[in-house]
Amino acid sequence: MRRKDNAMRKLQMFDSTLRDGAQGEGISFSLEDKLKILTRLDSFGVDFVEAGNPGSNPKDLEFFKQAEKLGLKTAKLVSFGSTKRKEINPEDDGNLKALLTANTEYIAIFGKSWDMHVDKILRVSHAENLDMIERTIKYLTGLGKKIIFDAEHFFDGYKHNPDYAIETLKAAERAGAVCLCLCETNGGCFPDEITKIIQHVKSCVNTPLGIHCHNDNGCGVANSLAAVNAGVAQVQGTFIGIGERTGNANLAVLIANLQLKLGFGCVPPESLPLLKETAHFIAETANIALPSSMPYVGSSAFAHKGGMHVDGVSKDPATFEHITPESVGNERNFLLSEVSGRAVTFAKLEKIIPDLQKSDPIVQTLTTRIKELEHEGYQFEAAGASFELLVYKELGLFLPYFEIIDFKIISSHYTAEPAEEKSPLPGRGSKFSKASALINVRVGDKHEITADEGDGPVNAIDKALRKALERFYPALKDMRLVDFKVRIIGGSGSDDGIGQNTAATTRVLIESTDGKTSWTTVGASRDIINASMMALLDSLEYMLYTNRETNFN
Amino acid sequence: MRRKDNAMRKLQMFDSTLRDGAQGEGISFSLEDKLKILTRLDSFGVDFVEAGNPGSNPKDLEFFKQAEKLGLKTAKLVSFGSTKRKEINPEDDGNLKALLTANTEYIAIFGKSWDMHVDKILRVSHAENLDMIERTIKYLTGLGKKIIFDAEHFFDGYKHNPDYAIETLKAAERAGAVCLCLCETNGGCFPDEITKIIQHVKSCVNTPLGIHCHNDNGCGVANSLAAVNAGVAQVQGTFIGIGERTGNANLAVLIANLQLKLGFGCVPPESLPLLKETAHFIAETANIALPSSMPYVGSSAFAHKGGMHVDGVSKDPATFEHITPESVGNERNFLLSEVSGRAVTFAKLEKIIPDLQKSDPIVQTLTTRIKELEHEGYQFEAAGASFELLVYKELGLFLPYFEIIDFKIISSHYTAEPAEEKSPLPGRGSKFSKASALINVRVGDKHEITADEGDGPVNAIDKALRKALERFYPALKDMRLVDFKVRIIGGSGSDDGIGQNTAATTRVLIESTDGKTSWTTVGASRDIINASMMALLDSLEYMLYTNRETNFN
Repeated sequence: MRRKDNAMRKLQMFDSTLRDGAQGEGISFSLEDKLKILTRLDSFGVDFVEAGNPGSNPKDLEFFKQAEKLGLKTAKLVSFGSTKRKEINPEDDGNLKALLTANTEYIAIFGKSWDMHVDKILRVSHAENLDMIERTIKYLTGLGKKIIFDAEHFFDGYKHNPDYAIETLKAAERAGAVCLCLCETNGGCFPDEITKIIQHVKSCVNTPLGIHCHNDNGCGVANSLAAVNAGVAQVQGTFIGIGERTGNANLAVLIANLQLKLGFGCVPPESLPLLKETAHFIAETANIALPSSMPYVGSSAFAHKGGMHVDGVSKDPATFEHITPESVGNERNFLLSEVSGRAVTFAKLEKIIPDLQKSDPIVQTLTTRIKELEHEGYQFEAAGASFELLVYKELGLFLPYFEIIDFKIISSHYTAEPAEEKSPLPGRGSKFSKASALINVRVGDKHEITADEGDGPVNAIDKALRKALERFYPALKDMRLVDFKVRIIGGSGSDDGIGQNTAATTRVLIESTDGKTSWTTVGASRDIINASMMALLDSLEYMLYTNRETNFN
Repeated sequence: MRRKDNAMRKLQMFDSTLRDGAQGEGISFSLEDKLKILTRLDSFGVDFVEAGNPGSNPKDLEFFKQAEKLGLKTAKLVSFGSTKRKEINPEDDGNLKALLTANTEYIAIFGKSWDMHVDKILRVSHAENLDMIERTIKYLTGLGKKIIFDAEHFFDGYKHNPDYAIETLKAAERAGAVCLCLCETNGGCFPDEITKIIQHVKSCVNTPLGIHCHNDNGCGVANSLAAVNAGVAQVQGTFIGIGERTGNANLAVLIANLQLKLGFGCVPPESLPLLKETAHFIAETANIALPSSMPYVGSSAFAHKGGMHVDGVSKDPATFEHITPESVGNERNFLLSEVSGRAVTFAKLEKIIPDLQKSDPIVQTLTTRIKELEHEGYQFEAAGASFELLVYKELGLFLPYFEIIDFKIISSHYTAEPAEEKSPLPGRGSKFSKASALINVRVGDKHEITADEGDGPVNAIDKALRKALERFYPALKDMRLVDFKVRIIGGSGSDDGIGQNTAATTRVLIESTDGKTSWTTVGASRDIINASMMALLDSLEYMLYTNRETNFN
């Protein structure tokens, strides 16, 4: 049953988080989000990253421009568009023109493989659809592009009209596509169907095949595996499974299955322990909560609760774990036991203090402190700088650079400009608003009292605080915020009364940079201003400490 | 490829939500929860409901007592326990005695099928383990019980020592078990392995087989299907997939796959349209959010976002749906987003104004207005109430109930209690804070100026606003917030200067209820207070409008 025979077979990993993933409900990537995810997928080592059509909106056009400058190490960026429109030459097709402005070596072109779609959606003859596929790809390969042909609805098409579905692949093959990707667009096929159909396809075409599955029947991963076993060379998916409807085949799960368990080559071996971290990074960037039960990367994936399970794993992890959590960068968690905390803290501390002993009392002290803070709403998984600061402070290595004595924020909102209270906007929020912040800071024995204004209360206090401190620590001028995320946690929908939930705990994550490196800090409080302030202070202190700024105290 | 040949084969559906599901992280059922879920699963029509061991705690003992009185129509209640301990007679085993107090006709007995567990965990000889299985089951069948033997770790055991794994099944068969359930306990096997192993098992034993899968490699559903195709008679799972680690095979997804798509008989046909409702009921009772992307039953399972998907489904749902949403009690949803257009707006508008014509200018006006608002950071996908309000306002149906003239928020923060400015907390945020809000509202020709305090600025203005309005609209007293979500969007990490990102656009989603129904509204602004205020105002207005409260104007 072991599959060591797969050891030499390299598969292409094709991630569509930025294209099909963006079609998931509630997903909306900013330009910066897209660039960050692209960079991360590249360093993780996937082969292809698909990222939409520059013609669809100005944001995507700008994305492709900036992506070109990134100097990707591993991943090929892929733009995505459809076959040309009917009754037009490819070179005159506006969509194809737009697609070419992406300036990528690889382009994914999707075309119709299900005759029903040709009849009802495209409303062209079956022959014309084949012509549209062939001429589009021929035109683009003529310009030196490498084309991945996405045979949309291939499997449904094959079930209704196998000959025609195969004809669409042959048209793409004749035109010089480098890969024929079989798309299980509606997500309703089962693994045994996938196997049988691909076995037949392989006898009809010679171009390498790809697979693109959705998860509408819960078989997205298994269908992709069936396709690999049947011989496809490229696996498409989205890293955390987001996408249209129930989502795409989960690429993180597939990579673990294929490489760790089945012995295929998917990504550099040193990337596998980064699997969990990468999945969480993408979820954070997409601003969604990664389901705790997600295989391999979810926070519960190695959480043992049943008494016999905990007992078994304590004796030998293989009793209830099919792989080791470390192999995918995850960790074991005993839900009924207090012993798990220390081990986890020690593993984290070891990275900061390499010669630390497991028996050092700091391990227990910090474990307790972290549990307290997590209970208050903190989360250090994505906030390494706040965790480091906590350690330095607990070890007595950190001396304060400054003290906030107090601060006040005044936020004023009017529906009309104060001058002319004429045209109020009934039923909308305030039209005109102003936030001001006053702050009193002590640095050594000097006090600085100052104020500033901003867009909203957090921006105002951020500006006032920097203004107060830059006089003492000019290096702070180089620091700027890269990202600012807010999450409401633990809102109780219970009978606590009206207004309870606008007082739920708020967690703020701030990513900062000094132009050379970047770091993330966290704050949590029932008051969003407090939560933001804590994350801001950690960020400033982390920069001052790691830059070894002279301390005024 | 159609499976009409399965039409006559009845499969037993075995739900373990109350036993294995209760072992999921964060799951904790009360006695009432368990009784409610049992009743619901019975009326839905599953064959077996497994519910733990009355000996494990007094709550479970009480549960079995009360369950006996329910008079279940379809489901057989199953208690669950292990084989007897070593070196003891079954009749003297305390665990078995406790199990019998459940007084159920069916009992699930789990035993070890993996020799490694026999060696390391049980620490008995291989022969003694076989004896423990056989004598336990023989004892119970002798008392008239029907025994389902759960062969724990059967597949891993088979891979390491196939002969011994088969011997454990034969021991149970000799003792008269009615079903031999093959457990994929660690969730690491693949469908092709399941198929091959079951094919061999079938040649060794004659008792009907069952399958119990976990989802650690994302193949829980596919593995269960492979087992059914290989001939098992009983499918175990948990209705919404909760369970140890990554959870159990999702029974709701399996029922839809097996009955709707593959033609097996699982539950009464009239139950299928209750699939979504039943899944949501169980999730609510377990107090967890059902993942929106869950196949068949998730709220996004039939949500279409990509422009071509929306266009296709409008022409013929089969273009992008593998089954009709109605067949499982779910519904189609066209998501409003940057990529969608008039077709989506029209589909949404049709639900509000049934006799609307596609050519009505309101369709274009609203499409344009939605795109503008989305550009500002709004997102109507999840905020149906804000969308409806927008329509009513655009149609001139909505007259304002009140006007906000202005409001002010003062947020004060101190590191020490104002009275004794002694022990400041260097480097942490403010320790003591207070937020107060003043508001000036006009209702008809009356002004109400009032104020309140809260945990943070949003909570303060929320309370002040309600205080001002409840005098005019007492119905607002019944309204409360269920959820409050904040998302920071479009933060630009570019060279716009320090502090830019604390001024990124904030989107707030608020879910409210009046105890009978619930609705979601949205607000967006660079100032979180404005964004929250807009969502709050929409929420209040929506309630007043849909309740047909008398308008003061």
